[in-house]
Formats: sequence, structure tokens, C-alpha cells
Amino acid sequence: MSRFFSNKFASLVPYTPGEQPRDKKYIKLNTNESPFPPSPAVIRAVCEEATSLQLYSDPEASVLISKLAEIYDAEPERIIATNGSDEVLDFAFNAFCDNEHPIVFPDLTYGFYSVFADKLGIPYEEIPLKDDFTVDVNDYIGINKNIVIANPNAPTGIALPLSDIEKIVASNPDNVVIIDEAYVDFGGESAIKLTEKYGNLLVVQTFSKSRSLAGARLGFAIGSKELITDLHTLRYSTNPYNVNRMTCAAGYAALTENGYYMQNAQTIIRTRGYTKSELEKRGFEVLDSKANFLFARHPDIGGGELYLALKERGILVRHFKKERIKDFCRITVGTAMEMKALIDSIDEIMGEKK
Amino acid sequence: MSRFFSNKFASLVPYTPGEQPRDKKYIKLNTNESPFPPSPAVIRAVCEEATSLQLYSDPEASVLISKLAEIYDAEPERIIATNGSDEVLDFAFNAFCDNEHPIVFPDLTYGFYSVFADKLGIPYEEIPLKDDFTVDVNDYIGINKNIVIANPNAPTGIALPLSDIEKIVASNPDNVVIIDEAYVDFGGESAIKLTEKYGNLLVVQTFSKSRSLAGARLGFAIGSKELITDLHTLRYSTNPYNVNRMTCAAGYAALTENGYYMQNAQTIIRTRGYTKSELEKRGFEVLDSKANFLFARHPDIGGGELYLALKERGILVRHFKKERIKDFCRITVGTAMEMKALIDSIDEIMGEKK
Repeated sequence: MSRFFSNKFASLVPYTPGEQPRDKKYIKLNTNESPFPPSPAVIRAVCEEATSLQLYSDPEASVLISKLAEIYDAEPERIIATNGSDEVLDFAFNAFCDNEHPIVFPDLTYGFYSVFADKLGIPYEEIPLKDDFTVDVNDYIGINKNIVIANPNAPTGIALPLSDIEKIVASNPDNVVIIDEAYVDFGGESAIKLTEKYGNLLVVQTFSKSRSLAGARLGFAIGSKELITDLHTLRYSTNPYNVNRMTCAAGYAALTENGYYMQNAQTIIRTRGYTKSELEKRGFEVLDSKANFLFARHPDIGGGELYLALKERGILVRHFKKERIKDFCRITVGTAMEMKALIDSIDEIMGEKK
Repeated sequence: MSRFFSNKFASLVPYTPGEQPRDKKYIKLNTNESPFPPSPAVIRAVCEEATSLQLYSDPEASVLISKLAEIYDAEPERIIATNGSDEVLDFAFNAFCDNEHPIVFPDLTYGFYSVFADKLGIPYEEIPLKDDFTVDVNDYIGINKNIVIANPNAPTGIALPLSDIEKIVASNPDNVVIIDEAYVDFGGESAIKLTEKYGNLLVVQTFSKSRSLAGARLGFAIGSKELITDLHTLRYSTNPYNVNRMTCAAGYAALTENGYYMQNAQTIIRTRGYTKSELEKRGFEVLDSKANFLFARHPDIGGGELYLALKERGILVRHFKKERIKDFCRITVGTAMEMKALIDSIDEIMGEKK
């Protein structure tokens, strides 16, 4: 820290992204990336865009936004595109929260929510998940604070039904409810339709998971025209060209081949089912995931120990040190072959422990 | 505005980027883009990267940063890469300024500085340029406030010599001095070398102008290890994957063909000289630009009128409504052919006025 760093950040602890080691080639099951490459149209579009990079991107991302509007059946004015969904979450926390408008979220969820709040000086409260790691909807009914819920939640993978989301949104009409649907395409129910009815609902999605564009950085949010206008005000006061030309083109192209991505999501759902049942056969407790990852623990081995043993064998999973979940590992669902390698490695590890 | 928008932003007026009309094809001299496309290695690198977009980018941008370190002869820990230089400016304003640490900058400069300060709730003061539109260095000596100076300045194009920059930095040891060198490759003197000596100096550059990557969004800053650490703390608390894979690859590739870009910059400098003298022959006052644009006014036509007349003829330049500069137009230096077309159009316009 320099002696110039503002006191307001004296205790700020940044987010820690999943490790990206470069010492050797790993089977990477630690950052919930898709095991499938982008579709051919994406690759073509990116190559084509490369020749005109001397020109700024369209600050309105009009072509991309129009296509999103078509796919999600929402007016373009109700959509904003950002440099990953982290950026729109940051804008939303900043736009709608302040000392008088705190935010609440589950104690076990995307680790970035508390970092955004800390950075922005926003008061927040973490509401404990139930013992079975589900969200207790009653905790959020009429709470009269801004709310952010990842649905499906991470790192648990557990989803709330849409009817529960609607109850939460409807019972907090004077607060903004942000539903972070990063993982929704793997079996969750999207709340996008509800944004027509509820002016206080903001739904955030990303192209990083089901649409194989983690490395392109593209997120978006859909809400009422008024909420989106506020987010644009912040965007134009931060980084008007936030989405570069290549990413705009890649996102648009991906939407023209939506079928490919939705089929990949179905494949991941099937592989998730296979992996879950194989883990359960071996005595793991595996939470009911609607995401592209599994959250699992075993009575005979700690989460940290399993993480390290897998890493030694060339497989990366993610372990969180937080007390309530330190026995778990979060395992991204890769290809069937990758999951077979994972299971084989687990058999080795558990065999050696006997 | 929604009823949920935080009061802290009640009077926030966002930055207005240069217009990007899509009604017809213009000669675009309004956003200081390079008229030259990216070099072949950039196009190859982007195409190659497109096939692995399902994987996150390296949050440390290590390969790119190492190359920047080599080119600018600075340790990698003293460099940060961002989604355009706007992003690192935003981080720097946020990191080093607060109620007790206001910031000052010229009254006529990059319009985003006041927007960042407004958005972040940072007190600021605009110090008037002299009547000849130069920075009065004495205004900044020992001012004991954080400072941001664009050098060369925009929209004037006028540069301060490095010795003046050093005087400012040396006389304000307890404040951060940010030198925004977006246009430095067109004839300015970079202060990067001074970052070895002064721990309070942060130099910001961009790939948008001389390196033909406006549409890829890549900026960077070089300073002391401590200043850069603070900026990383904010980056990891905002958007750890802020620079996408394609942009990292494009930036790296551009640096491997640095000669191409420096040659283009020389061409632009020559074309700038030609354009300036042609404008002066026609009675324009043209400020002494060390940037890839000219700032010019004519006694017989207002800046707004000239802007509109040129737009009608398919040429876009930029006009600012601010009182002190409303007689001027800012004209990006394009290709020699584009500048010839500009001069011809100006001859038409001035002829019709007679």
C-alpha cells in the first residue's frame, strides 16, 4: 500500500479469483468455464473485427443489444451490456445502494458481493443459508433492503423456484432486487419475464458460462427502463466504451447460434448427473446443483486435503476456507472424459487413505 | 432516472463521447482514432485467441505486462493494464482522492476528469489555462493537491516540456501527480522515466491512438510499485478479469511490431504539419499541436457552424460548447487524402460565406 492510498480503502480486501497456474497443464475444473469452445460464427466474427480495431466500439453496443432484445423479448432500452457481469453488478451496487439503502445477501454466495459493498462503502448484511444450504425465502420477504441473490446460488449450485423469487421481489417494492443468473442456463428458471411486471427487479446474466465466452468478458442486465437508465448514467461516467469491438461481435455471433450453446448446456447437465451419481456412490454428499458445477464433501477427507490431492494429480478444483463450507470442494462440470479422470483420481486418493 | 437511484448521483452528468452516427459513411475526424489499421501480428493474434474464449483471461495479464516492462524499461510490478485508459484513470481518482485529498486540473482538458470526480464525490478545482491555452506551470508548483494533467493536453494539443512536468511532480511530494499521455507518441516527451525517481508520479497511456487499438480497449499506467499495488487492489475489487483475452493478445502483438506504429505516428506528424499550414494559409488560428489532432478557429466562422457545415459534407470533426473554446473545432489528423478532402470542403464552405 502506498502512503497515498485513500483511508476509505484501508481495510479493503479484494476478491480472489480462481487460480490460473501456469506451471503445467491442468484439467481445469476450478472457475466454472465451459469445456466447449465458442461456435464457428464467433471465431469468424472476431477475426473479421480484428481488422478495424483502430476505430472505437459503439458505446451503445446497438447491434448486440438489439439481438439480446430479440432473444429475451425485452425492449433494447431495458438492456445494458458490460465488461463481464462483474461490471454491471458493480454499477448496480453503486447506483442503488448507499448509507440509507443497505444491501443483503446470503452468507454463502458469490464472494464478490461483499467486496463490492466494502469498496463502495455500502452497509450490508449476510443472511445465513439454512443448514441444508438453501436460501430461506422468508428471510427476504418484506425485508425492506436492497437484495442480491445468485440463482442458482454459488458455490452451492442450489436454485430457488421462480415463484419464490417473485415473492421476494413483490414484497420489497421500495427496494431493488438483483437476481444474478450467471448459471441459469444449466437448469434454473430465469426471472427475466418478471422484469416486465416489477420495476424494482434487475436480472443479471453473463456470456462466461453457458455461452463459452469467459475470456471475452460479456455480461448484461435486464430491468425496467428506469433502472437501466441509471446504470447507463454510471457507465457513461466510468467507461463509455466498456465493451470492446471484438466482444460485441463475439456476443452477437454467439446469439445467432444459440442452439449450439443450449445443446452444450444440456450436455453439461447430463454430465453433471453422471458425476453426481458417481460421487454419491463413493460416499460424497453432493448438493442438488442447477449450475455447471457440483459442491461436494466426503466424511473421510477435508475439502482442502482433497483439493491438494487432486491438484497433485493435475486436476484443479476450488476450495473455500470459509468455516461453514471448508469441508467442500466446488467442481466445475467439464467434459465426460474430464469427469471420468476426476472420478479415477478420487478413487486413487480415497484408496490411498484406507 | 429511477426512484431507486442513489441521491449521491442526483446531479451527475455523464461524459459525452464523440458521436458515432450510422446514417451514412463519414470521414471520421472526431474521436482521434488512428487512420491506420492494426498490424498483421495483431490480426493473427486475435484470430488465434478467438478459439479459446471459453477460458478466462489471465487476471495478471502477465504476458502483456512483461512486454510493456521490456519496452518501457520498468519492472512488471510497476505496470497495470486496464480496459482502456479511462478505467485506470477512474481507479486512480478513486484510490488517491477523497474529501481530504482533492484534485486539480486545467479548465480546458479531457472532459472526463470532472466526471470521474463528480461520480466519486471528490472535490476538485479547475485551473484556467492561460489566454494562449497553455498550462501555467506556476499554478501547479507546490499546490499540495493531487493533480492530473493531460500531456499533450486535449483538446488543445499543446504539450508541456518534461522539465516542467518534473517541477510539478517534485514540488508536490505529498500528492499524486497523474500525467495522462494518451497522445504522447505524436511528439510529446513521456514522463515514464521519472517514475523511477518520484514515488508520487503516475503516468497513464493508451493503445487507442498511436497503436490503432481504440476498438480493443487497452490502457496502462506506470508508477511506483506502491501506487500500482493500490490500483491493483481496486482492480481486484472491481473487475479482476478487466482485460479480455483478445485485447491482451492484441496488445502484446502490437508491441512486437512497435516499429510499424511509431512509423505511422511519424506519418501522422507529417500530415499534421501539412494540414496546419493549409489551415493557416486560409486564415485559421491553429494551436501548436503535439497530438494526432488540431484545434483551430477562424475569425469568419463559429466552431459550431463549421462543424455542421463539414458534417453536411460528410466530414465529422468535434465541437465543444464550452464558452472559452466554442469558436474552435478539434480535427483528428487522418490520412493525407482525408485531410485533403477536409481542406477542399473548408474551401467550399468559406467560399459560400463570401
